[in-house]
Amino acid sequence: MSYNGVAKQFLESQGISVGDTIRVTKEEISYEGMLLDRAEDADDKHLVLKLPSGYNVGVGIDGAEVELIQRGEKPKIELPPLEVEPDNKKQDISIISTGGTVASVIDYKTGAVHPAFTADDLLRATPELADHANIRGEAILNILSENMKPDYWIKSARSVADEITGGADGVVIAHGTDTMHYTAAALSFMLDTQVPVVITGAQRSSDRPSSDAFWNLMASVAAAKSDVAEVTVCMHATEDDSYAYLHRGTKVRKMHTSRRDTFRSINTQPIAKIQENRVKIQPNVDYKKRGEGEVELRDELEENVAFIKSYPGISGDIIDYHLDKGYRGIVLEGTGLGHCPDYLIPSVERATDSGVPVVMSSQCLYGRVNMNVYSTGRRLVSAGVISAGDMLPETAYVKLIWALGQTDKLEEVKSIMQTNLRGEMEVLSSRDYFLL
Amino acid sequence: MSYNGVAKQFLESQGISVGDTIRVTKEEISYEGMLLDRAEDADDKHLVLKLPSGYNVGVGIDGAEVELIQRGEKPKIELPPLEVEPDNKKQDISIISTGGTVASVIDYKTGAVHPAFTADDLLRATPELADHANIRGEAILNILSENMKPDYWIKSARSVADEITGGADGVVIAHGTDTMHYTAAALSFMLDTQVPVVITGAQRSSDRPSSDAFWNLMASVAAAKSDVAEVTVCMHATEDDSYAYLHRGTKVRKMHTSRRDTFRSINTQPIAKIQENRVKIQPNVDYKKRGEGEVELRDELEENVAFIKSYPGISGDIIDYHLDKGYRGIVLEGTGLGHCPDYLIPSVERATDSGVPVVMSSQCLYGRVNMNVYSTGRRLVSAGVISAGDMLPETAYVKLIWALGQTDKLEEVKSIMQTNLRGEMEVLSSRDYFLL
Repeated sequence: MSYNGVAKQFLESQGISVGDTIRVTKEEISYEGMLLDRAEDADDKHLVLKLPSGYNVGVGIDGAEVELIQRGEKPKIELPPLEVEPDNKKQDISIISTGGTVASVIDYKTGAVHPAFTADDLLRATPELADHANIRGEAILNILSENMKPDYWIKSARSVADEITGGADGVVIAHGTDTMHYTAAALSFMLDTQVPVVITGAQRSSDRPSSDAFWNLMASVAAAKSDVAEVTVCMHATEDDSYAYLHRGTKVRKMHTSRRDTFRSINTQPIAKIQENRVKIQPNVDYKKRGEGEVELRDELEENVAFIKSYPGISGDIIDYHLDKGYRGIVLEGTGLGHCPDYLIPSVERATDSGVPVVMSSQCLYGRVNMNVYSTGRRLVSAGVISAGDMLPETAYVKLIWALGQTDKLEEVKSIMQTNLRGEMEVLSSRDYFLL
Repeated sequence: MSYNGVAKQFLESQGISVGDTIRVTKEEISYEGMLLDRAEDADDKHLVLKLPSGYNVGVGIDGAEVELIQRGEKPKIELPPLEVEPDNKKQDISIISTGGTVASVIDYKTGAVHPAFTADDLLRATPELADHANIRGEAILNILSENMKPDYWIKSARSVADEITGGADGVVIAHGTDTMHYTAAALSFMLDTQVPVVITGAQRSSDRPSSDAFWNLMASVAAAKSDVAEVTVCMHATEDDSYAYLHRGTKVRKMHTSRRDTFRSINTQPIAKIQENRVKIQPNVDYKKRGEGEVELRDELEENVAFIKSYPGISGDIIDYHLDKGYRGIVLEGTGLGHCPDYLIPSVERATDSGVPVVMSSQCLYGRVNMNVYSTGRRLVSAGVISAGDMLPETAYVKLIWALGQTDKLEEVKSIMQTNLRGEMEVLSSRDYFLL
């Protein structure tokens, strides 16, 4: 990553490089600091400086004057290892990075954006972490989360299992926010863990003054030290820094393109609030408590599952297309209580007749599928369609991929889909949890 | 429709038919009334009686005793016309029925569920409507809304235009709730109206005690008499009967499978609250006011538009499949700020290179697409992808169908998609409208 567009031209015209210490003067205000590299989510109209105070500031180029104070070091690939002594009184928390906005959390010595991070990088950036836990870290991927895929879920699950087997008292996964909830659901099914596995990310990268990266990481380390031995998502609960929510990994969804509090529990309440490193379990929430024993990894997946949204005008051939391509399962994101146009029903029958499970979820997101109310639903039930209940469509999709990895027997898949394994479907989900 | 399962066996064993007046005794409480036919959304464990008070009551079969009081009339296909004198002081409101749960609103003289309704049916069921307006009505379709399709949007738009041209001061459309928001968006673009066009429905049919059908119809007639000359959705705003919301047709979505207040405005606030037949415009809301002039109908649509949700593991061939089938437009429901896996980008380029517009919306629902933040987005912009801004994915899909009906020039389609025509995209949408 590097500056582009207007910013690139501006810097080249001034002979200034990332890592240089510069003074930027604009409207009689001067800032002096190290020029940081642009983040993935930066525009080309601002320079970002690391001030001596440690804060970052973005300055608009328009009308700004720039002066070179000191030439910076060239970015280095390797930094000398930090020497941090483990403290036996503290818990051991592993941080696994997969990429995303949060992975730019580092306070780069050289101003360069590092592609991923190690424990050393993390501790250089956020020395406060060492006050709370013995941190170790590993970068296993460096992708934007729109490029996540089932293969990477497997890689992530194995890394988490390795960290836990290696003695971690909790694991934090840094992940892009776009598909964080898909990964959270996948790891929920793939791992049977006795310690917390907490996924977090950022809606603003760390070289923007409004970054939520460090704050979310701190809250996630607190969650990873807690008693909640589930796969969870930990992110801002509000637009300010008042507290974070710890969401069950199977019941959470990104609901806003840009707000910090974008992740919301659907059809349930968050497991906990996290405020100033204290984890407060919400009233009347059941959760799996930290325990002894090995982590269990069940990482067989069947990737050939289609996830199809129903809508007025949907092609009558779309299910057949996937069957003809050899797909092994289909999740429909139906309308209302779980419906699709009646002209799709013969293809649904063809699927179930040939042993391909078809699962119905609802694009309403809130509420639960009930195919016994209207005639279309009853026809779908007759055609063998499996209800996702109050599962999120995304969770139903991930669960079917996992279920088909465990067995190729249709009846067993059906049984897995209709059994609550990781809090993904509740027999009685309160109608009160609407738009919270 | 008729009783089935346990209820059918029970009635047959007692020799009782729909329309008979019966007494049902259970746990020392007796109800006497006419046996109504089962509604589409009824189970097989209850009988529904129309009491002399006019209320309907559902009585569980289990442990109930039934006594025949009077044999009912056989259902008739035709009822004699009502003679209601038009009142020149009242506004003329047309009610168009397309089917759905709300279309079972009738207080059937014979107890039979009527497949659709006329003005006479409506006034028999809800004589209060005549106090508020001169009601005329027509049933143009009788479908469950999961079977709605672009052809039926055209039929509906033409009927609305005919009613307005025929002198209606406002039009109410009774519609199933599953795809009501798709139809609302379609009519928004297809009609340029100077009078209100209000779409409503029911989450519980009228022969259930908890029905919202009549209440929603009453509120919708109030909205149809109001000053809001837009295509809107009028439904319960809360779980109780305190007030209704009038939502802009392009900014509304069904968000819960079963709650009465399932329809919510997304990225904006509702235009008005309706309480006891009074329409209260919300503070700081712009809306189109009732005016003079003809209704304009632009009902050309291009049905070959695909609506594809992006997700981890999506087939790399899915866009090519639609292009090879001759699809003329593609709407992606991307992740986050408007992303998809990078392996889809070459197919996106193929689409735009061949003149097929690709529009990006966000499955977050709340917020707005911004493809200038991350590298995937910038690659999509370079590939020619059109941003849906803060439009709902469903609205973007409907709008592209309509836009391609107006022109086959890619640049014109792009311009239409990026112009705010019916309040569907706002330059500054407040981040405060999150999960309201």
